[in-house]
Amino acid sequence: MRAISLAVAFTLFAVPALAAQQTTRIPETAIARATDLRAQALADSTAWKVTESLTTEVGSRLAGSEADARAVEWARAKFHALGYDKVWTEPVTFPKWERRGESARVVGAHAQPLHVTALGGSPGGIVEGEVVRFESLEALQNVAPGSLAGKIAFIDYQMERAHDMRGYSMGSRVRGGGPSAAIRAGAIGYLMRSAGTGWHRNPHTGMTRFDEGLTPIPSAALSLPDADQLARLAARGATRVRLALDCGWNGEYTSQNVIAEITGRSKPDEVVVIGGHLDSWDLGTGAIDDASGIGISMAAGHLIGQLPREQRPARTIRVVAFANEEQGLWGGRAYAEAHEADLRKHQLGAESDLGAGRILAFSVKAPDYARNAVAQIAQVLAPLGIEHRSDGEACGPDLSPFKAMGMTCAGLEQDATRYFDLHHNQDDTLDKVDPRDLAQNAAAYTVFAYLAADAEGDFGSAPRAADAAR
Amino acid sequence: MRAISLAVAFTLFAVPALAAQQTTRIPETAIARATDLRAQALADSTAWKVTESLTTEVGSRLAGSEADARAVEWARAKFHALGYDKVWTEPVTFPKWERRGESARVVGAHAQPLHVTALGGSPGGIVEGEVVRFESLEALQNVAPGSLAGKIAFIDYQMERAHDMRGYSMGSRVRGGGPSAAIRAGAIGYLMRSAGTGWHRNPHTGMTRFDEGLTPIPSAALSLPDADQLARLAARGATRVRLALDCGWNGEYTSQNVIAEITGRSKPDEVVVIGGHLDSWDLGTGAIDDASGIGISMAAGHLIGQLPREQRPARTIRVVAFANEEQGLWGGRAYAEAHEADLRKHQLGAESDLGAGRILAFSVKAPDYARNAVAQIAQVLAPLGIEHRSDGEACGPDLSPFKAMGMTCAGLEQDATRYFDLHHNQDDTLDKVDPRDLAQNAAAYTVFAYLAADAEGDFGSAPRAADAAR
Repeated sequence: MRAISLAVAFTLFAVPALAAQQTTRIPETAIARATDLRAQALADSTAWKVTESLTTEVGSRLAGSEADARAVEWARAKFHALGYDKVWTEPVTFPKWERRGESARVVGAHAQPLHVTALGGSPGGIVEGEVVRFESLEALQNVAPGSLAGKIAFIDYQMERAHDMRGYSMGSRVRGGGPSAAIRAGAIGYLMRSAGTGWHRNPHTGMTRFDEGLTPIPSAALSLPDADQLARLAARGATRVRLALDCGWNGEYTSQNVIAEITGRSKPDEVVVIGGHLDSWDLGTGAIDDASGIGISMAAGHLIGQLPREQRPARTIRVVAFANEEQGLWGGRAYAEAHEADLRKHQLGAESDLGAGRILAFSVKAPDYARNAVAQIAQVLAPLGIEHRSDGEACGPDLSPFKAMGMTCAGLEQDATRYFDLHHNQDDTLDKVDPRDLAQNAAAYTVFAYLAADAEGDFGSAPRAADAAR
Repeated sequence: MRAISLAVAFTLFAVPALAAQQTTRIPETAIARATDLRAQALADSTAWKVTESLTTEVGSRLAGSEADARAVEWARAKFHALGYDKVWTEPVTFPKWERRGESARVVGAHAQPLHVTALGGSPGGIVEGEVVRFESLEALQNVAPGSLAGKIAFIDYQMERAHDMRGYSMGSRVRGGGPSAAIRAGAIGYLMRSAGTGWHRNPHTGMTRFDEGLTPIPSAALSLPDADQLARLAARGATRVRLALDCGWNGEYTSQNVIAEITGRSKPDEVVVIGGHLDSWDLGTGAIDDASGIGISMAAGHLIGQLPREQRPARTIRVVAFANEEQGLWGGRAYAEAHEADLRKHQLGAESDLGAGRILAFSVKAPDYARNAVAQIAQVLAPLGIEHRSDGEACGPDLSPFKAMGMTCAGLEQDATRYFDLHHNQDDTLDKVDPRDLAQNAAAYTVFAYLAADAEGDFGSAPRAADAAR
């Protein structure tokens, strides 16, 4: 019934509403200003300095750790130092997971250590058993229940290298779904070839989960060389491994989304939101994941904020340093909940969270009336080597909950060819960030944010429920 | 007086002796056979299989560890399996150094872990103090005695990348000489930027030493990213580090040089000696250092051993898997002592211990009468992309004690451009070995060993004392 009455409503009001919708356009003055800002940003080192500062002064910053609180203070101080007009925090509460120690070794005739790291969310525990190797998640899911009793399941799936996220899709499925499949098969422990692409002896961590009703088992990832080694040993005959993890959940923690704004010239309550996440895994110093996203977005807001007031864009630039992305988008979900009522005030959003590689493509899935404005933005981005794609719909993970509610997102898609060499492992350190590539990112975010904020008209952000009711 | 009488002896006998010296030459039959062997070796996978077997089945094999004994048994069995005519062991006794645990962290406002590894020979201990950074060994050596009381000395010297050992020369000096300089300055601990070239978070170990009369202090190497980080922190202000090493000397151990021969056709008591070292550091699986040297030399002897008896070279091919190279050439020194009386029976020697990169150059510092034979060998090596150099004098570390006694050495110089990315760290694993490059090495050693062993005449090996008396 309700569906029918909505259809009637649509018939009655849709056409006049669409007819009234102005075509969104970006003024020539804004294009000229963004073009200047692009050159300025390419020569600016703010993004690099911010990335250097966070990774050096705070180092790794696991959500809920002592360094989490230091990172929040760092972000607040850095926003102030960069001249933002407003800086505030919004609480984000989540269960706290701790890593205290981890080791694994082959026992018996070929005794030797294996380099492992606990998956986030894994319980601690010491298990020893014969390793049973599977080539895929599906292979493990298809074994008979109980058939791995007393054994350790090992999924030896190698994720593919790609310039985008496509290889990670299956890699992260093996991480998320493997432990539950192992438990159903009766296994006492779970090992996986890291979801990564770099042949260094660095296991890659990341969250896993355990399906309801299952008793979690110690679950860890092997570095790629160690997965090779274990596969070779298992091919030679029965191979026993001792896995010892000291980790687990320990109460609750409240961190903060740190938010700052460069106030808009004429529509200060409307925002273009950009950002990155402030937390990192503990193994590296979180340089590409995601200090660089923080550096890029802080630099973009800063550069726009340095303009004389009358040259600022109409709308406000809001930069969010999200709390605890790594363990389940806690900061992003908290932001979406806290700002649901203001969703329409969000002109566009984009988060940088795929490393520090150059941006290759730009895309916005905008309504027809805003497509020309998107093309205008794309034209100013093009000299940065950025292609305009019509098919993309990516936005960073922390904005995805808000996108699901209806905010229109922009994808500024980075080259991730080497991202998964470093992702979630100890090699994610500052030396892997190329300052020139970082400046290209900052320039793109500066251009994007300025133009989106100065557009005449919107890009279609609207609550999903309202969409359905139209 | 003795010097004068020797000079008189030289005057009386030198000219006739030189006149009687035949020019060393290699028969055409040998050239033809070595040319065939070269093609065969390039298509052969023995070197790869041996390298795979040692690194997989034994894994890391720190001298004196449980794996040391397994490696000796592995080598003995592998020589037999590869069809060697004789296999035996010779004891090598050395002090045993153990690594049990190691960690470091910055304490205070920028608290964070640092990735370190104890230097071989370091004592254990926990020290905490302010870090004082030096750019070179000389800078540390030049500070006033006692001026670092209560502090931790940090030499932040970055070794240079090169295709040969030249960068390592200073890198290893910083490792060997830094701790004693630190102690003289009053330091309670020693940290160094690893002697390495790879920006991964893998510290490089290696032996250090403490000058007589000094009380050793905990001494460790930082990974390159961690050295960068500590340098950045130290530049910001006083930075305290807590270094905790659990390691040290623990009694004596007797390992074995494992030796095997392919008996020569007509001069079986004369030998061409080739080899690699069987031990490794404990952090990786010792794939490039030096399982590949073992694989290359075992494969070369094996290929020659597969020939019909009448096609074998005149002399015996001896392959030595040296014990404990890493902690002070213990196996090489034991070999030299044990075989001093047979030095003249050693036609030529060459050890492979610079990784698994392609051989770029060949050199022998031979007497004039053998130069043509050296050029003949070089001609058969040339199609492998190997240049004949007249200036080289390198031979592997384990043969250097015997070379010092008078054995003539051949240098088969590998491309070491990436060697020091992996050297002495956890990344020294099998995946870093390219099977084709390894086969090129095996082909070169096969050609070299065959031709040297079949030469008519010698290459000048003679006890140094006898040289002086000539």
